[in-house]
Amino acid sequence: MEQPVVTIIGVGLIGGSIALKLRSLPYAKHVIGVEANEQHAQKALTLGLVDEILPLAEAVKHSTVVIIATPVNAALQVIQQVLPHVTHQTVLDVGSTKVPIVSAAADFSQASNFVPTHPMWGTEFSGPEAATADAFTNKAVVICSHPALLASHLQQAVQLYQALGMHIVYMTPEEHDVHVAYVSHVSHITSFALANTVLEKEKEENTIFELASGGFESTVRLAKSTASMWVPILQQNRDNVLDVLNEHITQLRKFKTCLEKENYTYLAELIEQANSIKKALKQ
Amino acid sequence: MEQPVVTIIGVGLIGGSIALKLRSLPYAKHVIGVEANEQHAQKALTLGLVDEILPLAEAVKHSTVVIIATPVNAALQVIQQVLPHVTHQTVLDVGSTKVPIVSAAADFSQASNFVPTHPMWGTEFSGPEAATADAFTNKAVVICSHPALLASHLQQAVQLYQALGMHIVYMTPEEHDVHVAYVSHVSHITSFALANTVLEKEKEENTIFELASGGFESTVRLAKSTASMWVPILQQNRDNVLDVLNEHITQLRKFKTCLEKENYTYLAELIEQANSIKKALKQ
Repeated sequence: MEQPVVTIIGVGLIGGSIALKLRSLPYAKHVIGVEANEQHAQKALTLGLVDEILPLAEAVKHSTVVIIATPVNAALQVIQQVLPHVTHQTVLDVGSTKVPIVSAAADFSQASNFVPTHPMWGTEFSGPEAATADAFTNKAVVICSHPALLASHLQQAVQLYQALGMHIVYMTPEEHDVHVAYVSHVSHITSFALANTVLEKEKEENTIFELASGGFESTVRLAKSTASMWVPILQQNRDNVLDVLNEHITQLRKFKTCLEKENYTYLAELIEQANSIKKALKQ
Repeated sequence: MEQPVVTIIGVGLIGGSIALKLRSLPYAKHVIGVEANEQHAQKALTLGLVDEILPLAEAVKHSTVVIIATPVNAALQVIQQVLPHVTHQTVLDVGSTKVPIVSAAADFSQASNFVPTHPMWGTEFSGPEAATADAFTNKAVVICSHPALLASHLQQAVQLYQALGMHIVYMTPEEHDVHVAYVSHVSHITSFALANTVLEKEKEENTIFELASGGFESTVRLAKSTASMWVPILQQNRDNVLDVLNEHITQLRKFKTCLEKENYTYLAELIEQANSIKKALKQ
């Protein structure tokens, strides 16, 4: 296999982490960054995340693989800027929603070259400084097929993710967006709401700090995630998120009713039911 | 200082972890276990958590410090079994609620020897096998003073926790129970409810498993916690928990309304408000 030249558009947490890993692997010949934020561009060079920074059209022209790693709202624009320049290139995105971007690509004949993907990793941090080389190792990546996609481009994407040490899960874009509403998007809303609950009720911040080891840190960790990343995700996956959020509020109300009515038998049943999530988790 | 003989009643996750650490330190001369569950008692000996297992009255008689480390419902009985045997001993509990046990101890003249404490550490696991020696290092422990407590016993408790490498936070029992409702009890309910939401809506368990890295694992980790431990905690801290749970549901509804009304400006504000929890967390 010829070593591909890879362009990464958006060299932040996700794009930067992919770049960093690729530069340590024999997989890619050269890693180009495209970055609208001048400070991030400079930082990506200083940190050695990419070999060079180029303008979008030029970077695409020199590439074998183009990875769109911007927030999901920007990605809907970027895909439409990238595809007109595409001849032989494979184009991937790595965003947290899949239906809207597949839809944005569908108008272009180059949709045949577009592989919608979602590596299932992230932290509450952002920007190139947060990039870390082994972020993706042994994690899952969702690859969504769609009617226009050519097998050769799917294969290129698979080779990239295998080089990154990830295992591949195939889904339709619609299936993906439903599943991430459960396993990621509503977890984030819960965490934001829990942080706001504490900030509303608890004025002694120092006490929170002191006691935060009691399960609180892991639950509100996600509440540090940025609005610029999460508003577009929640907006694009609105229907699925609302559906799951309604169910979550219903489930919370069951706990509330148990406590109000002092029905501790049913409370124990609810907790035991929740315990069976063990089977669905790795550890 | 004379090396104390320490008795630990309930050699599970918390009691076992304290025992294990104490046996590695010069602080204690001898560590005795009291354990109602025969299998746990045997396991605690096999794992070397304690030097010996004795019946309650005999263990108390030979001790300088007695630590009650049972679930909080059992602790309300155990404190009343221990205190009648107490002469010079310092008695501590390590439970997640403080008002009920202070109240249970108040009828005894030996309440002067009882130090209510709460080391702020735990995992979703339980039993002696889950015990780990460095669980408490650099964590906070809440010590609650009460009117009957003698300074010499408070001092004995402080020396124990300093030996375990913990830093001490002082609160009244009432303050403690309000604060833990925020930082621990409602986090657990949220996590249980989120697990039940997913189990209700998502029938393909394998998909949850594959995608669980997307923030889900850290949010539902606590949902693996047992009903036998948590029903009594939520029952004993019912009023505070209901108060915080109501506020949490109100906060969640704000996110729901933003999505329903497509008010993404206010959604961003809610997320930015949640981000300020950073200041209250260590990392």
